[in-house]
Amino acid sequence: MKTGITFLLTGGTIDKEYEALDKPFTIGSGAVSRVLGYVKPNFDYEILPLMQEVSVNITDEHKALIKKSCKESVYEKVIITYGTDAMSEIGGILADISDKTIVIVGALKSQLIKDTDAEFNLGFAVAAVQIMPPGVYVAMNGRVYPWNKCIKDMSTGQFKEILE
Amino acid sequence: MKTGITFLLTGGTIDKEYEALDKPFTIGSGAVSRVLGYVKPNFDYEILPLMQEVSVNITDEHKALIKKSCKESVYEKVIITYGTDAMSEIGGILADISDKTIVIVGALKSQLIKDTDAEFNLGFAVAAVQIMPPGVYVAMNGRVYPWNKCIKDMSTGQFKEILE
Amino acid sequence: MKTGITFLLTGGTIDKEYEALDKPFTIGSGAVSRVLGYVKPNFDYEILPLMQEVSVNITDEHKALIKKSCKESVYEKVIITYGTDAMSEIGGILADISDKTIVIVGALKSQLIKDTDAEFNLGFAVAAVQIMPPGVYVAMNGRVYPWNKCIKDMSTGQFKEILE
Amino acid sequence: MKTGITFLLTGGTIDKEYEALDKPFTIGSGAVSRVLGYVKPNFDYEILPLMQEVSVNITDEHKALIKKSCKESVYEKVIITYGTDAMSEIGGILADISDKTIVIVGALKSQLIKDTDAEFNLGFAVAAVQIMPPGVYVAMNGRVYPWNKCIKDMSTGQFKEILE
Repeated sequence: MKTGITFLLTGGTIDKEYEALDKPFTIGSGAVSRVLGYVKPNFDYEILPLMQEVSVNITDEHKALIKKSCKESVYEKVIITYGTDAMSEIGGILADISDKTIVIVGALKSQLIKDTDAEFNLGFAVAAVQIMPPGVYVAMNGRVYPWNKCIKDMSTGQFKEILE
Repeated sequence: MKTGITFLLTGGTIDKEYEALDKPFTIGSGAVSRVLGYVKPNFDYEILPLMQEVSVNITDEHKALIKKSCKESVYEKVIITYGTDAMSEIGGILADISDKTIVIVGALKSQLIKDTDAEFNLGFAVAAVQIMPPGVYVAMNGRVYPWNKCIKDMSTGQFKEILE
Repeated sequence: MKTGITFLLTGGTIDKEYEALDKPFTIGSGAVSRVLGYVKPNFDYEILPLMQEVSVNITDEHKALIKKSCKESVYEKVIITYGTDAMSEIGGILADISDKTIVIVGALKSQLIKDTDAEFNLGFAVAAVQIMPPGVYVAMNGRVYPWNKCIKDMSTGQFKEILE
Repeated sequence: MKTGITFLLTGGTIDKEYEALDKPFTIGSGAVSRVLGYVKPNFDYEILPLMQEVSVNITDEHKALIKKSCKESVYEKVIITYGTDAMSEIGGILADISDKTIVIVGALKSQLIKDTDAEFNLGFAVAAVQIMPPGVYVAMNGRVYPWNKCIKDMSTGQFKEILE
């Protein structure tokens, strides 16, 4: 299997766009490629836009497509950009994929906003996915967690470890 | 020892500033704290500005201070921001520190420039320093290398692995 | 009367902020002061935040306060930041103020978005308000119009002159 | 004569670029078109890159070309982007062109820097050039001056009126 990273794009805040005149935002698919354009990455990758949805609109069909795409990815390292409200839920669906390292990442602000966390978070995810052993992880706020060991604090937006 | 990251700031392009009227740039020390301010990091850290120099101006005294600061850091995870032209050189000086994970990072464009790689690179370094075992590494262009296994391609600016 | 500019802030897209976790945006009041901070302006000014509303939520009470604030402004040059959907409407309410130059301006994207038109538009408005004779104007898309001589093309967002 | 604006690009800080590996900056010619791309301007324009120089490198040949280009411009409204250290000097050379409105503008920070004054200054210049009568002006720091009535304060970078 080739060395490299498959990026699966599903939507979420990281890909919010503000061009629309009649609604507060739409969802695009350009954040990852814009950020990689800043970086001259020294790894192979493919970017697969699967859907452009906020996480509350992710359906069972969407989830099935995400899982199928993880299983069929060219690379054994997979980064999924996803809305921050349901990262552990999608993590659970992917949990039985045992031969790949899958990192779920997103942002609290669109990559198009000046003080976004998107670039930092993507850089973090790119390191984590390369170094961590196979498994399904959430990477947010400068930490990587097994998918079922973190929770978003809905009052601050910050992800934290679940204390046993 | 506490869990967390010590950031040692030495200068380099990542901290270039463009306020001066009589020279093309000066070196500051605000890049790391600005970026962490975008992120709400869920880890402890300290930021220690050691010097504000481009790498060609780093003296033996500077190097000694960097090494001393690595040895005495509160945290066992250390990120050093450094100019991209001499990362392996400083890595060699730190190579005999065996009980800490030290990641040397920088940027090809100042964190103050719109399409900078600084945010991505810092996110990458924060993941790498937490996950990698003790040792001295260079993290650039979406890859982490043992300090003596990478080289900057001076025609493109991209760091690449040294092929044996 | 002193030379200078009174900025009246009412809200609109130019001041949209994206910190909230439970809604797509809120309205702040920092855009003008952030932009003037980039510029080192060589004119006196005051910034008066009157309300933080999108234009559809501007009430008759809000309009009365805006008009009162125009009449009572320290400076005879007044810039009003306002939502782009109802600029001519507020212009009509102010139309009988004959001793001041009033320029209504806004942005199609928040000042916090990377490719915003906010900085350009504010710069444009600052020039227009200083040079134009007393009257009430709308300044958008690189043009200044008497308040009742332009219309927003709802399909493109661009303001255009009303052809007689 | 058509209504519209001719932009003459000569270089200066507004067009500094930071891609080069072996020098602190180079001069490009993209600032004006990038900014107009944010704005959807409702006026005709042409952009003519004449040279890419910092103002200290502007030669007599360059000056002759700038003057010729002003005289031959398609539009009677001309904006010249120029280094901030020699704006009045180029203004003096153009001073005998009496049938056009010429505004000289620049920036203290490259348009590629996050907190640049370039967008504001260009917006300001676009308004000034449309409204002012024929003549040669410098537009900086939110003010428009006859070319020989302002001076750059070399300690702050701010342009100020020359007091008689």
